[in-house]
Amino acid sequence: MPAINNPPTSFFTEQDLVAWLRSLPKPNPSIWPVGIGDDAAILHPSPNDELVISTDMLLEGSCFLIAQAGPLRVGRKALAVNLSDLAAMAARPLGCFLSLALPKSGDKSIAQKVIQGLLEKAAQFNCPLLGGDTNSWNGPLAISVTVIGTTLKGKAVRRNGAKLGDWLLVTGQLGGSILGHHLDFTARITEALIIADMVQIHAMMDISDGLARDTRTLCEASGLGGCLHADHIPISSAAHQLQAIAALGIAGSTPLEHALGDGEDYELLMAVSPADGQKLLSSQPLQSTSITKVGECVAEGFWLLENNKRNLLQNQGWQHNWA
Amino acid sequence: MPAINNPPTSFFTEQDLVAWLRSLPKPNPSIWPVGIGDDAAILHPSPNDELVISTDMLLEGSCFLIAQAGPLRVGRKALAVNLSDLAAMAARPLGCFLSLALPKSGDKSIAQKVIQGLLEKAAQFNCPLLGGDTNSWNGPLAISVTVIGTTLKGKAVRRNGAKLGDWLLVTGQLGGSILGHHLDFTARITEALIIADMVQIHAMMDISDGLARDTRTLCEASGLGGCLHADHIPISSAAHQLQAIAALGIAGSTPLEHALGDGEDYELLMAVSPADGQKLLSSQPLQSTSITKVGECVAEGFWLLENNKRNLLQNQGWQHNWA
Repeated sequence: MPAINNPPTSFFTEQDLVAWLRSLPKPNPSIWPVGIGDDAAILHPSPNDELVISTDMLLEGSCFLIAQAGPLRVGRKALAVNLSDLAAMAARPLGCFLSLALPKSGDKSIAQKVIQGLLEKAAQFNCPLLGGDTNSWNGPLAISVTVIGTTLKGKAVRRNGAKLGDWLLVTGQLGGSILGHHLDFTARITEALIIADMVQIHAMMDISDGLARDTRTLCEASGLGGCLHADHIPISSAAHQLQAIAALGIAGSTPLEHALGDGEDYELLMAVSPADGQKLLSSQPLQSTSITKVGECVAEGFWLLENNKRNLLQNQGWQHNWA
Repeated sequence: MPAINNPPTSFFTEQDLVAWLRSLPKPNPSIWPVGIGDDAAILHPSPNDELVISTDMLLEGSCFLIAQAGPLRVGRKALAVNLSDLAAMAARPLGCFLSLALPKSGDKSIAQKVIQGLLEKAAQFNCPLLGGDTNSWNGPLAISVTVIGTTLKGKAVRRNGAKLGDWLLVTGQLGGSILGHHLDFTARITEALIIADMVQIHAMMDISDGLARDTRTLCEASGLGGCLHADHIPISSAAHQLQAIAALGIAGSTPLEHALGDGEDYELLMAVSPADGQKLLSSQPLQSTSITKVGECVAEGFWLLENNKRNLLQNQGWQHNWA
């Protein structure tokens, strides 16, 4: 991980913050001839690549509680949710842009720590910070990040290419992200590139709104329905723990319901041919996590196979993302 | 201006809003094969171009008062401030991304009108909306926009290329933007392209933090000082009006001080050779506005020539932008 200049003090003005941001190590000048410090950054993608761009905003009180999460984790998450979108296209990160709305009252060092968290993640994923905007206001902390990534021309994986009979696979375990995973997850950039290198992924997205809803999103985008197998869904230990926590007011849900309905897993959901699916399941090429078959693409409707019965898949989950 | 689908009603849910955004006319598929609706947008820049990227955030209460400005104007401004950054690099817009933090309380139609304002501006500048993120929260309205533009390779105009003896020129009139110009300005995209086509612009930026501060920024980036001529600075009628308005609590400033210190002019400040400067001043190639010489690049220091005296240029103005 490249060194990151430490900010000058733990309590500084917005002007100091800007000076610090301008002093950060420069990214690769053959890709980014101009980064922080001009009106805009300049990008030289290589001629055979295409660019993939996504943006996501994190809001205090809605997406995180700063007192609970801590500003470093919030900064990491602000970039990670965007990297997860790049992973979902099987793209490699090139760089990111940050806009920060800072509360006028409160601890001024929060801004610096949020940015430090983001820079840690940026270094880990080779995704340098290229520009942005900081403003103070009488509102809570808001963080908007835009990422730019690259794929070989025609190799970006969209949501709409699933075929009838495709297997639906996921990485990792699902559910219960509220217990910590939603802040500390690893965007599946590496995993997506490994899988895309091995097989032809027909359709892919990251699971941010819950498996049930995102299965619907992916299959509908492909003009199909979907059927999930209750017994096959990889349920996280957090989803099991949640069932036991009555104090959160979400008791009553089973671990399966958490795995189907909870948002912010940030795992990959993909549709591949049965042959490619078999290849991935038997080789398990990911060092960091497993790949599991959770269902298939069907002609129409959304279903949950449970105890040999095919029930309607409930439209659980969240929705707010539109790109 | 291409047609924009009207949103379904004037009061709708976030889900309706997302559906409306997905129904917008598709941008040119040879440039943007994927826009709104997938994990990320895909961009195919042409091989000889380079890309220019900028991001800016507008915050309720800090950058605008929604009750005073109206949501359509705020939406237009949110894109226009970003387009102004592209203009400052002599870039042509390709597309934009929007993140919106919506107050849970209050008039829900504000979101729709903000987006409509942005879409109007987007259509005017051929800069389609390609993706984004909407969230509700218990904070005020926040709007973050990222724009992507293109220039011929090597033709983006930076801030750091001014040469000793260069003339400093500006477009338009300066000062008093608080009376309305800060919401209703035209980003100088067309003007920048016309000028860049006629002469070699050594350095350029948009005037967002006031002429005095931005002259300092541009000249310092070029390793130089700057001298402004008080008599030559084009003072807007708004700057004159402001002097008369005691109620705003900013009385006491002269029109010249407003023209030097007020932020948000969003005019172009550029450094060109004296020969090129003469060519621009005599031909006045802009249909929409004039070009004026306001000073020169000098070896060191920042000065204001006034009544044949060279005084230190006060460091008036705003600072919050860092890219």
